[in-house]
Parts: sequence; structure tokens; C-alpha cells
Amino acid sequence: MSGRLFVIGLGPGDARYLTQDAVESLQAADALYGYGPYLDRVPVRDGQSRYPSDNREEGERARAALRYAAEGACVALVSGGDPGVFAMAASVCEEIEAGPPAWRTLDLAIVPGITAMLAAAASAGAPLGHDFCALSLSDNLKPWELIERRLDAAAEAGFVIALYNPVSKARPWQLSHAFALLGRKLPATVPVIFSRAVGRPDESLTVTTLQAAGEVGANMATLIIVGSAETRVVPREGKTPLVYTPRGVAKVMA
Amino acid sequence: MSGRLFVIGLGPGDARYLTQDAVESLQAADALYGYGPYLDRVPVRDGQSRYPSDNREEGERARAALRYAAEGACVALVSGGDPGVFAMAASVCEEIEAGPPAWRTLDLAIVPGITAMLAAAASAGAPLGHDFCALSLSDNLKPWELIERRLDAAAEAGFVIALYNPVSKARPWQLSHAFALLGRKLPATVPVIFSRAVGRPDESLTVTTLQAAGEVGANMATLIIVGSAETRVVPREGKTPLVYTPRGVAKVMA
Repeated sequence: MSGRLFVIGLGPGDARYLTQDAVESLQAADALYGYGPYLDRVPVRDGQSRYPSDNREEGERARAALRYAAEGACVALVSGGDPGVFAMAASVCEEIEAGPPAWRTLDLAIVPGITAMLAAAASAGAPLGHDFCALSLSDNLKPWELIERRLDAAAEAGFVIALYNPVSKARPWQLSHAFALLGRKLPATVPVIFSRAVGRPDESLTVTTLQAAGEVGANMATLIIVGSAETRVVPREGKTPLVYTPRGVAKVMA
Repeated sequence: MSGRLFVIGLGPGDARYLTQDAVESLQAADALYGYGPYLDRVPVRDGQSRYPSDNREEGERARAALRYAAEGACVALVSGGDPGVFAMAASVCEEIEAGPPAWRTLDLAIVPGITAMLAAAASAGAPLGHDFCALSLSDNLKPWELIERRLDAAAEAGFVIALYNPVSKARPWQLSHAFALLGRKLPATVPVIFSRAVGRPDESLTVTTLQAAGEVGANMATLIIVGSAETRVVPREGKTPLVYTPRGVAKVMA
């Protein structure tokens, strides 16, 4: 009954983003749980069982991993990016709170990973070089009015904004509404970065302006960064421009 | 003249947080630049020169690395945590924008790392499991009034708040002012996490409430996470409590 649960961040798609801690935790596990495409990134090891599940089954996946760990197994639950950022770690904590008391005594280790906004920012320059926020645009788990309020507040206060889950088949209009709303608070020239499939072979980066952002396509694999009025674009011949937000702000904005 | 500059995030103190990409980029470099204590974390390799510098010399350090890369060298500039979050990447971009045109054609690669808030959150549970922001409390590079405005906006909109650079010898009063200000917007019971020296042998974690946060000591090696009204604390016998912010919000806050 000395069960152990690792909740492991795999980072963006490529193995080069894995930390040493993640590699060792994956190797130590008797069993792996996770969304199928994330599990597929983990090399197969003899004697290690695998339990892939569907994207929408976070609660059940977390409970299954907790149950097996409570039986004494060393279990790894894998997550894309960082498990603590719009991913599995909060699900696991929710299930521990709601579950049997024994789950609270498990040896739980959350292994951080490179979350999408850090990889996207690195590929563009340093757009998160000053104060910023991270916001999920999905209104599956919170009301759309709350998202609007947060977009307003972040833009007015001069935070750079990283948008997770910008769009899905079931949520076709939210992103263009978000851009329209931000356009009422921010200059039309504010840089906007679309980072698609960052860390995967098909990754791409688009740098545009808030005014033109609605014309760029996005999907669930896109991470969007909306700059602040301070964010700068440095053209580079033959390369994508460098986008960065200076560390300093000289005076309070009007 | 095929110079290359890597700006590399070492993550928190321990080598287990290094990504494979960071390890390989460090090995490829002819020369290493960085704040002395960060450079000391990188294993010595024959034939690789080292240029440690002081904490406050970001601009000069970035220029020195850019100059050497522009001579054709493969240069690594190391940063704690993630280089794009209150660290060296923005400095490098600033210097490229202000510097000679040749610096724009350099092969620049920013290698992301585990930033302190992700490691701190992982050690506490999943406090960043819902929308959050990251804010530097240092008023060296921006006016204090702007920091107050951002704290207000973030608290009112229900963002969890990660505070970087909470205190230093030259900035002794800012943190207690920030807690007082947040106390006017948030319930007194909101969980507050103090993560000290995360990833180092002397790391420690304190979970308290906003009301009592002023009594906990902090320094430049402390990362503070102030929860939202939704953030929960799950007591665990013989362990630090688990702190997490649920992924969902049922209704718009009043």
C-alpha cells in the first residue's frame, strides 16, 4: 500500500522538451494513463501497462489512475504541456478531494513541463517578457460572460494575454468575439502571435496585428498570444519578426 | 559569420528540471554567458569559455553575448527558470532592436525552461489550474501605481496571481502593500502559497491565507501564488495540504 502517482507534463509535442525528471518518472511507472495521443509520445517499455483514454474523460481518467495507485502501484498520468496549466493536475486534485480518504495519503508528485505559451513565446521572441496572464477561451467549464470580463480586465491593465483552447468545433464564434472585445480596449496595431502545433514537425508561427487577427485560422492546437500596447515587433530579413514585450514601462498608461 | 545565440532556460535550481533541448544547446556552445550563480549550475566542459556577470548587468551581458555570436561563435546565454518570463530573452530582444543590423540576422534560438511558478504550483498541487496571471512586484522597471492597478484588476477578475520578485533589500514594503491591497478585493481566507528556493536542496513550501500572509517571510528566491475565491485547500495527514483551483466556475461572481 505504498502507492505512488506521478502527474507528468510532457511539454509540447517533441521529446526535446521533456525534463530529466519527466523521463525518470515515466521510466519508474508500472502503468501509464493519459489521453491517447499523449501516451503515444511515450516510448514503450516492457512490463509497463498503458491505459489510453478519450480527451473528454479527465475525471474518469484521474479516478482510474488514483484507484490503481491506491492499490500500491506506481502510476504515471501523462499530460501535454504542464499538468498544472489547463491540464490534468487540477482534475487529480478535484478527485482526491471528492474521493476516499486513502487517496489523500498517496505519494503524489506533480512533474512540471513546458506549457504551450512558454514554447510559443520562445519561438516568437519574448512576448511574455513583462506581466502577462493565461486564459482559457473555452466556455465549457465557465460562463462566457466571465471570459469577457477577464479579457476586459487584462487588456485594460496592460497584461499580455496568452489564450489557451481558442476554438473548437463546438465553439466556433468565441475567438472572433474575443478579438472584437480586445479591439475596443487595445490599439489595432497590437501584435498577435498564432503558434500552431508548437514542438511538432508541422509547427507554424504567424505574427499579425489585432486588427487582422480575425483573418488567421486557429484550432485546438493553436496557442495565441495577444500583446499589450508595449509589445514590439522587430523585422528580420528572411526570418519571422521578433516579438517582445520590454521588461520596463516608463510611465503609467492613460 | 554563421553565429548562433541560444538563450537557455535552466529551470529552477535542480538539474532534473533541465529539458533535453537545454542540455544539448549547452553542450553545443563555444561560450557561456550568464549571471554567476546560474553559470555555476552548468557542468564544465573543456574548450568552452565562461563569462559570468552580475545580477544587474542584463543589458551588458546580452550585448556581450550578441557581439561574440556576431563574430561567428556559438554562444549560450543562460537564464534561471524560463528565459522568456522576467528573464534574459526580453533583454536580448531589446538589444537586437537597438543594436547593429547584423544582430538581426543571427541564428537566435530561445530554449524554454520550467519557470518558477510552474515548479511552485506543482509542489503545492494545482493552484494555476484555472485562469491566472504572472506579475513582477519589482518597481525598478515600472511605476508602483501600475503594479497596484494590475493587482486590483487581476483580483477583481478572479485570476490566480503568481508574484515574481516579491521583495528585495531595496524594496522592503511593496509585498505587504500588495497583500493589503489584495485583501480589499479578495476573501481573507484565500489561500496563499510561499515557495522558497524551489528545486534546490533548501526548498520549502508554506501554505497560508491572505489574512496571515504578511507574517510569512519572503525574499528574492520566493515565488508567491495568491489564489482566487475559487482556490481550494485539501488537508492531508502528515503532508502539506494540496492547493488547487478547479478547472470550472459554475456561475459569474458577484
